[in-house]
Amino acid sequence: MSRLIAEIFADTGRARLIGVTGSPGAGKSTFVSRLALEYRKTGSRVGIIAVDPSSPYSGGAILGDRIRMSELYTDPDVFIRSMATRGALGGLSPATIDAADILDAAGYDPIVIETVGVGQDEVDIVRAADSIGVIVVPGLGDEIQAIKAGILEIADVFVVNKADREGADRTVAELSMNLDFSQTPGPWRPPIVKTVATRGEGIAAAREALDLHRDHLEATGAGRQRRLSRARARLRALLQARFFRAIEADSSSEERLEEAVQKVAERRIDPYAAAAELFSRFERA
Amino acid sequence: MSRLIAEIFADTGRARLIGVTGSPGAGKSTFVSRLALEYRKTGSRVGIIAVDPSSPYSGGAILGDRIRMSELYTDPDVFIRSMATRGALGGLSPATIDAADILDAAGYDPIVIETVGVGQDEVDIVRAADSIGVIVVPGLGDEIQAIKAGILEIADVFVVNKADREGADRTVAELSMNLDFSQTPGPWRPPIVKTVATRGEGIAAAREALDLHRDHLEATGAGRQRRLSRARARLRALLQARFFRAIEADSSSEERLEEAVQKVAERRIDPYAAAAELFSRFERA
Repeated sequence: MSRLIAEIFADTGRARLIGVTGSPGAGKSTFVSRLALEYRKTGSRVGIIAVDPSSPYSGGAILGDRIRMSELYTDPDVFIRSMATRGALGGLSPATIDAADILDAAGYDPIVIETVGVGQDEVDIVRAADSIGVIVVPGLGDEIQAIKAGILEIADVFVVNKADREGADRTVAELSMNLDFSQTPGPWRPPIVKTVATRGEGIAAAREALDLHRDHLEATGAGRQRRLSRARARLRALLQARFFRAIEADSSSEERLEEAVQKVAERRIDPYAAAAELFSRFERA
Repeated sequence: MSRLIAEIFADTGRARLIGVTGSPGAGKSTFVSRLALEYRKTGSRVGIIAVDPSSPYSGGAILGDRIRMSELYTDPDVFIRSMATRGALGGLSPATIDAADILDAAGYDPIVIETVGVGQDEVDIVRAADSIGVIVVPGLGDEIQAIKAGILEIADVFVVNKADREGADRTVAELSMNLDFSQTPGPWRPPIVKTVATRGEGIAAAREALDLHRDHLEATGAGRQRRLSRARARLRALLQARFFRAIEADSSSEERLEEAVQKVAERRIDPYAAAAELFSRFERA
């Protein structure tokens, strides 16, 4: 993959990355499909990267509601890529951002990255985007709690989907109140848009809100800051992968690691001392 | 923290770690409170570590339904610690497992680690446990999908909570079917227990299932394997933290990292080449 990225990298950096996240069952895939259709109206070629939670053991991804996107599959100007997070190392998944680069170089713009859930990995992926849409559904008090803690602060646009359900206005009010009491009010106040994605309602407004945010990024220095933090997260993830590869590639350092693992498991050395010793040997190697 | 862990480490390794996870709103905290009361009946001193999803910006944790545990707060033989994941680096959070060691050395056993959500970080934390309880609630089709992908395979015991709701038996049947079709059937088939945690129903059965799993760990080599992977995850997390600290502590390597970040953001060097260069300089330093 690294050779391909090296070849195309100069042709990247043109596409907007739009991240979309929210809890399971919030209707993310349906919303993303509708949003893609909305952008298609202006002739844009749209890339979609759907990141499934990976199974920690089998590494497999499920398709789930991906099939709802079938109307887009036949459009040659829409490219959909489904991938697992493979979060073994944590942090930004290199494969996901590589896929975005490839679509970018191929002329897809915008590229929508859809991630499931509220975990750190998902947050890291979606934070790599230029604009972040967080999808919420009405009437899930506990969910709002979780969202508050995890993804409220990363939203550039809130989408209250399934807005034909009871409690939609209350959810809007709750989100708005949370914004009022935000500890870190910035120059951008995330708009809150109501949608019924299954019927295509509110999608144009959601698109407008996302485009307003793009204008904000361009008018202020915020866009450049996003690109810098994306590059930083990417470099850190690649450095981390190199570090563990370097340990595992050398059979004597791999062996030392396994010896230390056994000693720690048997409580013969404490983990901090073991890590310090392993690291100093690695530095000297 | 490292000095404290070094001092107490020889006194650790006696407590069972029980991980409890599930989606927001599944009733995890209520279940954990009831389970703690159940273990208290036999005179055990119980530790509870509640890991909230951390906000990527403020690093803050919310309390949320933690307050439901108030009945336990007055019991001197129950120690409750609430903490954020601080998953900036991904992987097993050193602070969480350090807290478990401290409770372990202080004689708390079992120690219940409660995590929210289905993200990789949460999965990493809960995987560090000896026995893992996954809480599911009836009637959430999409949720089951997400759980299937993320945490079905790590469950040692399934708890169908809020089992007085419609669809509880169907959820049990679905979970059971998923187990039948599991790609990696092992010697342990996770029991499925129905509970109504708010009323304390089924808690004794859940405890029995967890204790059966402990017996299984002891009778087979599985317990030792768990301890080894816990030590491995812990060492990797500490090594990773040391690696980034080493980069950031040296002003010239920190500067080189920031230079590379800018070049990557401006598409003047591709990230793989930049990471390779940074890493080779680090190795030589």
